Amino acid sequence: MKKTFFKKVAIVGVGLIGGSLALDMKRLGPAGHVVGIGRSRENLRIAESRKIVDSWTTDPARGAEGCSLVVVAVPVKSVARVVDSIMPVLDKGTIVTDVGSVKEKIIEEVEPLLKDGVSFVPAHPIAGTEHSGAGAALTGLFKDKKCIITPTPATNQEALNTIRELWQEVGSQVVIMDAKLHDIILAGVSHLPHVIAYSLVNTIASMEEKKGQTLLEFSAGGFRDFTRIASSSPEMWADICSMNRTAILDAIEEFQRTLEELKESIARDELSAIKRAFERAKKIRDAHIADG
Amino acid sequence: MKKTFFKKVAIVGVGLIGGSLALDMKRLGPAGHVVGIGRSRENLRIAESRKIVDSWTTDPARGAEGCSLVVVAVPVKSVARVVDSIMPVLDKGTIVTDVGSVKEKIIEEVEPLLKDGVSFVPAHPIAGTEHSGAGAALTGLFKDKKCIITPTPATNQEALNTIRELWQEVGSQVVIMDAKLHDIILAGVSHLPHVIAYSLVNTIASMEEKKGQTLLEFSAGGFRDFTRIASSSPEMWADICSMNRTAILDAIEEFQRTLEELKESIARDELSAIKRAFERAKKIRDAHIADG
Repeated sequence: MKKTFFKKVAIVGVGLIGGSLALDMKRLGPAGHVVGIGRSRENLRIAESRKIVDSWTTDPARGAEGCSLVVVAVPVKSVARVVDSIMPVLDKGTIVTDVGSVKEKIIEEVEPLLKDGVSFVPAHPIAGTEHSGAGAALTGLFKDKKCIITPTPATNQEALNTIRELWQEVGSQVVIMDAKLHDIILAGVSHLPHVIAYSLVNTIASMEEKKGQTLLEFSAGGFRDFTRIASSSPEMWADICSMNRTAILDAIEEFQRTLEELKESIARDELSAIKRAFERAKKIRDAHIADG
Repeated sequence: MKKTFFKKVAIVGVGLIGGSLALDMKRLGPAGHVVGIGRSRENLRIAESRKIVDSWTTDPARGAEGCSLVVVAVPVKSVARVVDSIMPVLDKGTIVTDVGSVKEKIIEEVEPLLKDGVSFVPAHPIAGTEHSGAGAALTGLFKDKKCIITPTPATNQEALNTIRELWQEVGSQVVIMDAKLHDIILAGVSHLPHVIAYSLVNTIASMEEKKGQTLLEFSAGGFRDFTRIASSSPEMWADICSMNRTAILDAIEEFQRTLEELKESIARDELSAIKRAFERAKKIRDAHIADG
């Protein structure tokens, strides 16, 4: 099989995801020269010193010129703005792809901006940590992880195949899915947990204020693990909440109903109902999630 | 300083906490002979083969006879029942202590059961994992962890000092605190997170049922960490919800208000309010919790 190869690739947003993809594309073959594009010179200098990028610029249009692949790895609310700013310089045959955690709204914003001969392939690698920036980029981040690609009727089939091969070459298992379904699934398993983790830490902070008493110093390992995702980038996650609003609100409401039901069982001291709810959760989690 | 030493110690409930304490008491000096007491012969045999206990019995009264220290490490709703069953055989001067995550209600139930000359010291080591049983016991589990002791006006001062020394000898930092305050703090940093984690997993399960679509296979590391505590013992946690009902209901309601406020910001697409809430949480978490 001929391997995917891009002579010159632009990565817009050399953070955890963009930076990790650049590292693996250079390490595993799919990329020749990688241009890093971003707003922070400091972050781009880190990317250069870590050999994540071969060159860099803060000017998206200059950086994207002559690239056959542009990976837009910026917060989801900025994807369309970036695509708009680089479109004039892109050659025919160029593929633009993204890595955003929201797909329907990005597609809605980006597809009208495409000029003839330029393809957009919406993608989302399910990988990450709570850290951000080029300093957090890791080789092998996508190995054995899922990458969801959400083509639309407008998606060029050849470009879709190329992006699928790219993610397979960095070790991911590619799943093709409808954008709307992607957004509902991710609202449940990723966006809702972030909303809850942030809210839990803020709840503890409010309790501390009301009681005039430190609580966090009495937290243990469970709390540390539980709230790790509350250390994620606020800008990135505020954007996701805005761009996947409907699905996230549905997920929050489903969670509110579940929690309210459990609260009522606790209020009525219905020990067997409480235990049954906990047993159901433990059984599902133990069956589906292997602890690393 | 004369080291604390108990010639014969009974551990009722040789699980994660009871078993780990037994291991460290034998390893570090405070215990001569350790008798394991429990309901499951299989668990007690594991405890014996791992040299956590020197002997074992399923009969609490027989096991506690002749012991100068009895550590009751059973689910919080069973502490008083255990204390009641062993009381007749205890010698004058014997200390009974517990390790429960709820203090006020245990004290209320246990103190009336004490006979003359037997002391009860309510204690709670802030340590643990989501695993349970003698197989999960670890040496050094309490090292550099906090142990909260919540004496009452009825607590014997000498017994309190002895239990304080015991926890210090296994490496814990002892904090003396009012039982009511303990219960409020733990409701926030431990009980509420468990209630939420169980509810989140059940929410995902409900979403899966409604959509007829698997969601959990698209979860990543964040979700795994976030829901780890949902693999904790349902029996133990149902008991805690019952025994610390008032403080847990208060904590759930504080959380519900915080989440509802965030939900409303998301519904109105107030990006800066959402970001502000996330920034507050990230700042607090990053400042107070070091990732291991």
